[in-house]
Amino acid sequence: MAGLFITFEGPEGSGKSTQVELLRRWFGKAVVVREPGGTALGERIRDLVLHDRAMSPAAEMYLFMAARAELLAEQICPALRAGESVIADRYHDSTLAYQGGGRGLETSWPTFFPKPDRTYLLALPPEISLRRLSDADRIEREPLEFHQAVAKAYERLAAAEPKRWMVLDATASPEAIHEIVRSDLAGFLKRSQPSSS
Amino acid sequence: MAGLFITFEGPEGSGKSTQVELLRRWFGKAVVVREPGGTALGERIRDLVLHDRAMSPAAEMYLFMAARAELLAEQICPALRAGESVIADRYHDSTLAYQGGGRGLETSWPTFFPKPDRTYLLALPPEISLRRLSDADRIEREPLEFHQAVAKAYERLAAAEPKRWMVLDATASPEAIHEIVRSDLAGFLKRSQPSSS
Repeated sequence: MAGLFITFEGPEGSGKSTQVELLRRWFGKAVVVREPGGTALGERIRDLVLHDRAMSPAAEMYLFMAARAELLAEQICPALRAGESVIADRYHDSTLAYQGGGRGLETSWPTFFPKPDRTYLLALPPEISLRRLSDADRIEREPLEFHQAVAKAYERLAAAEPKRWMVLDATASPEAIHEIVRSDLAGFLKRSQPSSS
Repeated sequence: MAGLFITFEGPEGSGKSTQVELLRRWFGKAVVVREPGGTALGERIRDLVLHDRAMSPAAEMYLFMAARAELLAEQICPALRAGESVIADRYHDSTLAYQGGGRGLETSWPTFFPKPDRTYLLALPPEISLRRLSDADRIEREPLEFHQAVAKAYERLAAAEPKRWMVLDATASPEAIHEIVRSDLAGFLKRSQPSSS
């Protein structure tokens, strides 16, 4: 199986980490990454972003992007170059949705951030995702309007690049969602690989 | 005197901090800022960027931008809104010159970073600025070619916005340079303020 770059997006409580783990088991061998950690620098940035006192929205955005850049350089790009698949629990679409959509900042996609082959949006109404959370961190404690703006931004992103995104109903069972992801990926691989017959 | 946003740019060893201090004394009351420190978050970022092990060029760039965003939110913008002048020892042009010109990264100017009223480039050939340095940090230890690319980028930035930039020969005496800056700022203020006669 060729090295694929697959990302999962959506609000906290939407089951991203469960889907990442189910997919990793199906792949057998795949590199799993989770932002903003995953590198020594990223772990220090995670401490700054998620648990520190309030900071400016732009500072928050650039800290996430710094952690992402380091994760790309240290893990994602080397794995893809070696033919391994990478499954990411959040990637740059999270910045476009949270800092762009949620906080209203100007955002863009830097040319040096590779685009994923496939992105799965685990869509969940904010009213439900917020109820699923207990120990909320700084960003999750934002008001409902913030999370509604994030959800709208995710919808727009998925609509703008339908070939990359697949929107999934996160209220379905984890097994049912995983089935759809597997079947979608099988079709994607069939379409993208030259026929051997 | 109205609140002005003035930045000094140029390589290490070009005398920026001396000019910042001479200008601060002339203003009497002005807020002086120096990147990437100046805020609690910025000081933690300074430790990560300047003294840590190697990191990816993009991670470095975004850490500088995070520190800058926080400095804007906490110090620069509040001071300007209160009518105070701000003198900055480096600002976003440093990212365009070092990470853009020096490291070849895609860079741009975010709309939420206000442009300075006036930017003074203390131009110094890399051969001289490198000789002036003793305890070089990680970025300053780059090879001569890197510093030449930075110098070229500064030249291009100044040429592209001649109304904002003034290029100064940093081999002149600090007092002579300060004289030129003062006289330039006096002219700038005369042009930009409505006549009271």
